[in-house]
Amino acid sequence: MKGRLTHTVEIPVRFNEVDALGIVWHGHYLQYAEEAREALAVMHQINYLHIHENGYMVPIVKMEVDHKSPLTYGDTMIIEAVYLDSPAAKMIFECSIYNKATKALVATVKSIQVFTDLKGNLQLTYPDFFQQWREETDWE
Amino acid sequence: MKGRLTHTVEIPVRFNEVDALGIVWHGHYLQYAEEAREALAVMHQINYLHIHENGYMVPIVKMEVDHKSPLTYGDTMIIEAVYLDSPAAKMIFECSIYNKATKALVATVKSIQVFTDLKGNLQLTYPDFFQQWREETDWE
Amino acid sequence: MKGRLTHTVEIPVRFNEVDALGIVWHGHYLQYAEEAREALAVMHQINYLHIHENGYMVPIVKMEVDHKSPLTYGDTMIIEAVYLDSPAAKMIFECSIYNKATKALVATVKSIQVFTDLKGNLQLTYPDFFQQWREETDWE
Amino acid sequence: MKGRLTHTVEIPVRFNEVDALGIVWHGHYLQYAEEAREALAVMHQINYLHIHENGYMVPIVKMEVDHKSPLTYGDTMIIEAVYLDSPAAKMIFECSIYNKATKALVATVKSIQVFTDLKGNLQLTYPDFFQQWREETDWE
Repeated sequence: MKGRLTHTVEIPVRFNEVDALGIVWHGHYLQYAEEAREALAVMHQINYLHIHENGYMVPIVKMEVDHKSPLTYGDTMIIEAVYLDSPAAKMIFECSIYNKATKALVATVKSIQVFTDLKGNLQLTYPDFFQQWREETDWE
Repeated sequence: MKGRLTHTVEIPVRFNEVDALGIVWHGHYLQYAEEAREALAVMHQINYLHIHENGYMVPIVKMEVDHKSPLTYGDTMIIEAVYLDSPAAKMIFECSIYNKATKALVATVKSIQVFTDLKGNLQLTYPDFFQQWREETDWE
Repeated sequence: MKGRLTHTVEIPVRFNEVDALGIVWHGHYLQYAEEAREALAVMHQINYLHIHENGYMVPIVKMEVDHKSPLTYGDTMIIEAVYLDSPAAKMIFECSIYNKATKALVATVKSIQVFTDLKGNLQLTYPDFFQQWREETDWE
Repeated sequence: MKGRLTHTVEIPVRFNEVDALGIVWHGHYLQYAEEAREALAVMHQINYLHIHENGYMVPIVKMEVDHKSPLTYGDTMIIEAVYLDSPAAKMIFECSIYNKATKALVATVKSIQVFTDLKGNLQLTYPDFFQQWREETDWE
């Protein structure tokens, strides 16, 4: 493992994201995490669009969400996204979501993506452009 | 463990659920699984509303999704939901999502919910109404 | 005006589409209507993908929704979509949404789309492929 | 008409809100507008929750959206929400959505809500608590 990359985003809870009890619906956390992953990825040029332009896709194969405390309307969350380099041909992200005001941990979202070509064929090794990116990246 | 309960639902993919590449966005699987869980729960009177009327909530604390193959616009999925009785005070569901036409396994969604009172206090043992339900249920 | 085309689809309300009061959130009606429009469009080969392959896009410029009665969890809706041919270079749809069980009118959704090229330039006349489609279509 | 109330909110476009062509899906504008309406309503204590606590609901009966220019990922919108007092028992909002960077008008969203009691019965005149609010409000 070469190292990690980190990035932090801030997202306000929207009115339509809370349910009848005033709590954010659990399904929304996947889009919050995707927002944080994509922001990190754009900074390092490994976002969906860039990967697609190189002839590959990175579908999610595994997702784990742990919920620790709720968010309500009016809250703002801070998401710390971490990209973890993997020896195998995978993209691994771990996002920690915090309540901005209370600093409480709200949830963690771990995801694993694999590489396929544009026809959906699984790539067992990193595509060349991505391997080159790994070599040139200034890892933390 | 007393046993399990099962129920199957059928859900057509909607046009707005597929992304630019024609594939269902990964986040939608959480609502598909919720649909299947709720349908099973309504049949056995352990749905959100019924639980709330008894003075409790069942927030999701853990969620695991494994993606095996994609769904596209025009596909219909079959979801087999399984409720697994737990000795601890938890609700555990495992949903298997299949492509109706090809029978291919599309994804599995495992979820764990805990019991809280309406103020959000965690219940370490099953609430009485739910314990009674466990005793009276005709488990598979 | 050359005439109209019609198509009917059936959509069950999903659990996550109802709000705290058990009523479908008003914003979901736009995706219901899109589902019906797209189903009609696929049948007549004027769906988004087909139009895009011909080098054009059809962004929505106007949308009107009238809500007549609510839908709740467990309801199924019937949507009658009507495509109205326009002398001007526009796509006009009118969707009527009914409660399948009660036959009550739930909502109407009217939409207007224009043609642009792939760079977003507005087309003041019908693109050739679409004009040909209009001539060859068996209008009701 | 007694006057108007205004409020402005700022909302960043989220990654999952853009479609294959990089454009915000038209249906999302309804939640953007709701966010702006609710923010204004909370400031003036006429939000959904406050109205419900007084024994009434305010379902949307009419919605009109005009799209002028697109939003893409990375854009932030500014929404100017206007509440227009009505002589009839209705809540009328007009929201103008602008691109924060370019100042371009993106869309306008007009909505009409009526008052019902908690059983859904239409109110032909303003409820007392709301009439009192109208009298006491410092209209622009």
